[in-house]
Amino acid sequence: MNAPAVNVPAPKAAPAPRGNRTRSGPSFDLSVWAAQRRHAVESALARWVACPDTRPAPAGLGEAMRYAVLDGGKRLRPLLVLAACEAVDGSQEAALRAACALELIHAYSLVHDDMPCMDNDVLRRGKPTVHVRFGQAQALLAGDALQALAFELLTPDDASVSPGTQALMCRMLAQAAGFRGMAGGQAIDLASVGKPLTSAQLHEMHRLKTGALLQVSVLMGAACGNPGRAAQLALSDYGAAIGLAFQVVDDVLDVVADSGTLGKTAGKDAAQDKPTFVSLMGLRDSQNYAQELLSQALASLRADGLQNTAALRALADMLVNRGF
Amino acid sequence: MNAPAVNVPAPKAAPAPRGNRTRSGPSFDLSVWAAQRRHAVESALARWVACPDTRPAPAGLGEAMRYAVLDGGKRLRPLLVLAACEAVDGSQEAALRAACALELIHAYSLVHDDMPCMDNDVLRRGKPTVHVRFGQAQALLAGDALQALAFELLTPDDASVSPGTQALMCRMLAQAAGFRGMAGGQAIDLASVGKPLTSAQLHEMHRLKTGALLQVSVLMGAACGNPGRAAQLALSDYGAAIGLAFQVVDDVLDVVADSGTLGKTAGKDAAQDKPTFVSLMGLRDSQNYAQELLSQALASLRADGLQNTAALRALADMLVNRGF
Repeated sequence: MNAPAVNVPAPKAAPAPRGNRTRSGPSFDLSVWAAQRRHAVESALARWVACPDTRPAPAGLGEAMRYAVLDGGKRLRPLLVLAACEAVDGSQEAALRAACALELIHAYSLVHDDMPCMDNDVLRRGKPTVHVRFGQAQALLAGDALQALAFELLTPDDASVSPGTQALMCRMLAQAAGFRGMAGGQAIDLASVGKPLTSAQLHEMHRLKTGALLQVSVLMGAACGNPGRAAQLALSDYGAAIGLAFQVVDDVLDVVADSGTLGKTAGKDAAQDKPTFVSLMGLRDSQNYAQELLSQALASLRADGLQNTAALRALADMLVNRGF
Repeated sequence: MNAPAVNVPAPKAAPAPRGNRTRSGPSFDLSVWAAQRRHAVESALARWVACPDTRPAPAGLGEAMRYAVLDGGKRLRPLLVLAACEAVDGSQEAALRAACALELIHAYSLVHDDMPCMDNDVLRRGKPTVHVRFGQAQALLAGDALQALAFELLTPDDASVSPGTQALMCRMLAQAAGFRGMAGGQAIDLASVGKPLTSAQLHEMHRLKTGALLQVSVLMGAACGNPGRAAQLALSDYGAAIGLAFQVVDDVLDVVADSGTLGKTAGKDAAQDKPTFVSLMGLRDSQNYAQELLSQALASLRADGLQNTAALRALADMLVNRGF
């Protein structure tokens, strides 16, 4: 498997000075930065995910996989990988592979989550969900194949990524996706419907269900370089804070936004009697909590050893004050 | 994650001489060899799969994962890994991890295959299937988590397996499990119900659906050592032949055996109008074909560079002339 051409221009803005308390620096344009990087990710995914010309999958499986992955999604996890990689001046080739692998894991989890035996959702990103479009059996297989493909992307059979980095990336992703990460959080979620959760239990559920994959996006980006211990810990803290903030904001949006804006069915959590931050602490306190987590994330980026944190800062801000 | 103690005694029998045409050598006792190795695999799986004492999974997920994996199964793929490792005098630690990883992939595929949207099977190894016992949502999650855990097992955070071997193992497993391996074969299977297949199409389906994982078991065992090119190719040929033979024999048994012997519902293929080797070439020719594939597998083991092939020979024989 040859790597698609990696063509990610360096950000135009100068690195934000360390300790700068403004959120993303005055001259950093996140929309330009993100558009360039999303383009690189989309191109790579289009070539790597069961490309009909070069790597076709049999019997409709490729179509279902590509439908689940391409032409949709904010690519938040890939952007976090690429931003963290820039903060440690890491390998762009390794980062692009990690970015795509994370998006595949995210996509497979959505496909399986949407199935009738789980959330039974028929709309995702404004389109029919995979099982509605291709049938449940094909959706199940497509999700399974996307998970396997994530690990295939992380282990190219060439010298573009060192074996040590390949192995480390696989370990990090497997742990974040597995029973003590995303899958474990989903199991707590399943068991929690209609039950009151304590604040600690709700935090644990989201730390695993969505937080683990967001945090590991940052850490896999960092693993593309050789950050010192302080920088690594800082990025881990940043990832944990934004991972939690993401879910808090999601719960808020489920209450205040409509389905058209969300691209999925709004108000579902309340309808399904699922515990959320809003149901636990109220709307106003949830909004304040998200802002507090944003402050924590930004503060952690002041650590020694981080170089260009402008994108990480802007992404955290965008994630909490969703302009996308 | 610490490795369980690996305690696999060397086989008692002397290596079968190269070129010996008897199937497994007169002094090799497969049942003793397999029992010792199954014990090592069972112990490792019991410790590595969501062990309630050391690595618990939340909210019932661990129980579902362990139910799917422990106390059942012939452990054919692990035995192939360990036998191939012995043929190249490879690392036992690496082989035990590869053996367990393959069993997890196999187990997850059975859990998902049995679900109502796929084969809708309620009996597996004489027990209720995972979705019958734990519900469909938990079965879906358990399968997903088992696939992730396979890659976690292959990438220990210690010096027991070199990073290069870790990365290679992940690559091999991901490819064999994914859209151009097992998942792709299952998609062909889905699409083929009620349709006539040519011999070439039937071979392609089984090469992917079951063959890819059996062949890669042999190749991952070989990757635990440093076999020469000739030995590697020979093991690849051996794996391809037994992978196909396995399915031919399965089709034969589906016709001639009863559910009690199989541990699963017999006669299902015909009831579901699925194409099989028996439906394509008849019972007698299918039986002859399996014997021919066995001869091919044994012949390939005469290659230069293979050391102790007694277990590989005996396993091929057992697989075709199922005494287990």
